[in-house]
Amino acid sequence: MDTFLNACRSVIGATHVLTSAEDTAPYLTDWRRRYTGKACAVLKPADTQELAALVRLCNEHKVPMVPQGGNTGLVLGGIPDDSGKAVVLSLTRLNSIRHTDPVNNTITVEAGCILKNIQTAASDAGRLFPLSLAAEGSCTIGGNLSTNAGGTAVLRYGNTRELCLGLEVVTPQGDIWNGLRGLRKDNTGYDLRDLYIGAEGTLGLITAAVLKLFPQPKAQLTALAALRTPDDALRLLSLTQSYCVSSLTGFELMSGFCIKLVNQHFPSMRLPFAEEHAQYVLLELSDNESEEHAQAMLEHVISAALQQDLIQDAIVARSIAQSQAIWDFREHIPLAQAAEGKNIKHDVSIPISHIGDFIRTTDALLQQSFPGARMVTFGHLGDGNLHYNVAHPEQETDKSFLQKQTTVNRVVHDSVHQHGGSISAEHGIGALKRTEILRYKSDVEMQLMRSIKQALDPLNLMNPGKLL
Amino acid sequence: MDTFLNACRSVIGATHVLTSAEDTAPYLTDWRRRYTGKACAVLKPADTQELAALVRLCNEHKVPMVPQGGNTGLVLGGIPDDSGKAVVLSLTRLNSIRHTDPVNNTITVEAGCILKNIQTAASDAGRLFPLSLAAEGSCTIGGNLSTNAGGTAVLRYGNTRELCLGLEVVTPQGDIWNGLRGLRKDNTGYDLRDLYIGAEGTLGLITAAVLKLFPQPKAQLTALAALRTPDDALRLLSLTQSYCVSSLTGFELMSGFCIKLVNQHFPSMRLPFAEEHAQYVLLELSDNESEEHAQAMLEHVISAALQQDLIQDAIVARSIAQSQAIWDFREHIPLAQAAEGKNIKHDVSIPISHIGDFIRTTDALLQQSFPGARMVTFGHLGDGNLHYNVAHPEQETDKSFLQKQTTVNRVVHDSVHQHGGSISAEHGIGALKRTEILRYKSDVEMQLMRSIKQALDPLNLMNPGKLL
Repeated sequence: MDTFLNACRSVIGATHVLTSAEDTAPYLTDWRRRYTGKACAVLKPADTQELAALVRLCNEHKVPMVPQGGNTGLVLGGIPDDSGKAVVLSLTRLNSIRHTDPVNNTITVEAGCILKNIQTAASDAGRLFPLSLAAEGSCTIGGNLSTNAGGTAVLRYGNTRELCLGLEVVTPQGDIWNGLRGLRKDNTGYDLRDLYIGAEGTLGLITAAVLKLFPQPKAQLTALAALRTPDDALRLLSLTQSYCVSSLTGFELMSGFCIKLVNQHFPSMRLPFAEEHAQYVLLELSDNESEEHAQAMLEHVISAALQQDLIQDAIVARSIAQSQAIWDFREHIPLAQAAEGKNIKHDVSIPISHIGDFIRTTDALLQQSFPGARMVTFGHLGDGNLHYNVAHPEQETDKSFLQKQTTVNRVVHDSVHQHGGSISAEHGIGALKRTEILRYKSDVEMQLMRSIKQALDPLNLMNPGKLL
Repeated sequence: MDTFLNACRSVIGATHVLTSAEDTAPYLTDWRRRYTGKACAVLKPADTQELAALVRLCNEHKVPMVPQGGNTGLVLGGIPDDSGKAVVLSLTRLNSIRHTDPVNNTITVEAGCILKNIQTAASDAGRLFPLSLAAEGSCTIGGNLSTNAGGTAVLRYGNTRELCLGLEVVTPQGDIWNGLRGLRKDNTGYDLRDLYIGAEGTLGLITAAVLKLFPQPKAQLTALAALRTPDDALRLLSLTQSYCVSSLTGFELMSGFCIKLVNQHFPSMRLPFAEEHAQYVLLELSDNESEEHAQAMLEHVISAALQQDLIQDAIVARSIAQSQAIWDFREHIPLAQAAEGKNIKHDVSIPISHIGDFIRTTDALLQQSFPGARMVTFGHLGDGNLHYNVAHPEQETDKSFLQKQTTVNRVVHDSVHQHGGSISAEHGIGALKRTEILRYKSDVEMQLMRSIKQALDPLNLMNPGKLL
């Protein structure tokens, strides 16, 4: 081990080889503080060449490698196991924005760039980089790519995979693949790019990427609608899309119980409706023309929906500030939920047409097995991604209810599967859902994935124990 | 061989095992009639199960398999070699539209469905399936997926890859992978879908797919602008995108020489401009609101471009008929070119910001080596895809000039590579460009592709001699 670490020091300098408990601690515990692993060192290369040299050393000494970006993952994908054999390869020093090309609508960034900084660089060039998620101030694009992150703008712009044109990758053997192409069309072989994206660092290390930029919208405006059922929300979605097509950038469902929780824990926050309703939808338009145009579009949709009796009440924001207030409400749901106690979270997606049935069926199944369980159902209805969270019954403590997590997961995930859905819409598999997917994936699919892993990383040194 | 063919007959019925020269001929010559291969039989299974059974037989008897759809490919990807050892697996009988789900905005189709029929089924459900290309009346979606076809709507909707959510695939061993998911978000493992898409049938056979549907636009309208240089065209593209964002669905460049060729061979077709110009751009908007709204947007863009001296003249269509007339002109370029004689075609893409420089540099290089060569440059400027075709000098016959194809290709492709481009934007590699890509791909990339091929098809039975 000393030989190995000394070789690492000679490649990247002793100050970038962290071995003390104090120095390595921030890299060994996941951000929800659920698990702490061990590592023989945390290595912080300065660039792709240094990283490739480290990977070759790891090969020589058969040292497992755990790539890490901002360490904001939710499925323990960037944390080593507790054997202490692995090194953490922290990519945070690879943080240059290499090139911005507003004519080609691309930006070339290194893996360690913080998402927020990329958004800012795009904006400085008069463009939009639409990936946006809660951790954007600390997560890195390398992690976003490796987990194919989703976020709030998927409905209009797609997942991270759809936002990337080219990659630079260090292979498990320490070779550098330069696939940094800024092309919208390129049909010259297998789609290696999309194979690395979402592979959670098990097939190689993404070191840089060419990302797509978009024109900035002229205005963003929201509306809030009150309605009876998730099925009516789906009808409202179809109606809105037929009017607004790609201008619709947000369509968030919130159950009446979510709203009650916010009211209860943040009494100053009130929805501007006289009555309580069963469901609410937040709509967001990103308009090419003006705030007035966005407002007219939203009012048009809302009045059509009222006429068709799809919604009972609605407000359209008259300003950016009012739009923000509606989003604030949406963003307070997880906070209200946390204030109510710990709960069992699910990051699932369902074909949009089955969501109504999924919610009805799963609610009933949970009520049957866990009487009094309270479903905190909200999420990005427009792309089928639900935060289907389950809070403890009032007569039970959250702690006691959390003991039943495995059984609750089973009920929810089985129902997701029966409705043609996915048990991990945007968080990935990591170490956390690794056995869970075996229940839902066919042997054929698992075997295909294992063959690819074996072909590209025969020594199983890249992030072992994750995903597969 | 008889044992094998008899076994095939017992699986799919004797009438679907074609062996006579007459019966097999249509499957053995490519559609541009440049090459004829041989096969021991053409097999036409009725469904995925029959196909899987045939693949297992091919494994047992070590018979190479060449998948084929509508046989409209341009790089000999679906034609067997001349050894006569392979079977052609024709998927045209797998032609059901299995399911249309307008709420989920998806359609589930079998590989042998003709593209046009899918467009019609989508339209019947009040939705748009945007993939559109010249061969749409006879090409099949299985071929579109296997070549990741591009077409005319890439600027707004992406390539075929971006239009697909899930696949059903028969593996080279004859297993069936059911990945027919209709989900916008699903992060549960390697992206097998995108690996099969564009793999040109070398990793398995795509038998069915879940495709994305979109709202139908309310109106489509075009404008035609006359300008000085490709660089001005790029400035016009940025300007248009800043006004119209995702409403811009077409942005086609045509050089003045293209227009002259059309005038010469179709004298009744005239552009409505008083003078001749060096370059022309066709703009198409797909509008969410109305024809009037589209017209106002286009007029707004055109007047801003005139004010900035980006364009010299322009017309905005006042009706669908006028729009169609502008498109007709664009579509007559290849016809005029054919009337002028055979020419050397290139299907290339370049980062949009480098296109001006690419055209200038490559024109000069070709003039230097082939004095008098006439560049017929047009294409989808909005997604960087140029048809950079080269016609014979006036003092030379087309036949004599075609002898120089390899050298001309070399000059063009080297220049494409130097400008960060791709030598196959949308047609793929097939048998035609298989050695050509070795010049431009790194060893690392080739090795990664070969490892994947070896892992998934160790016997090299799936479309051998194509792509790799």
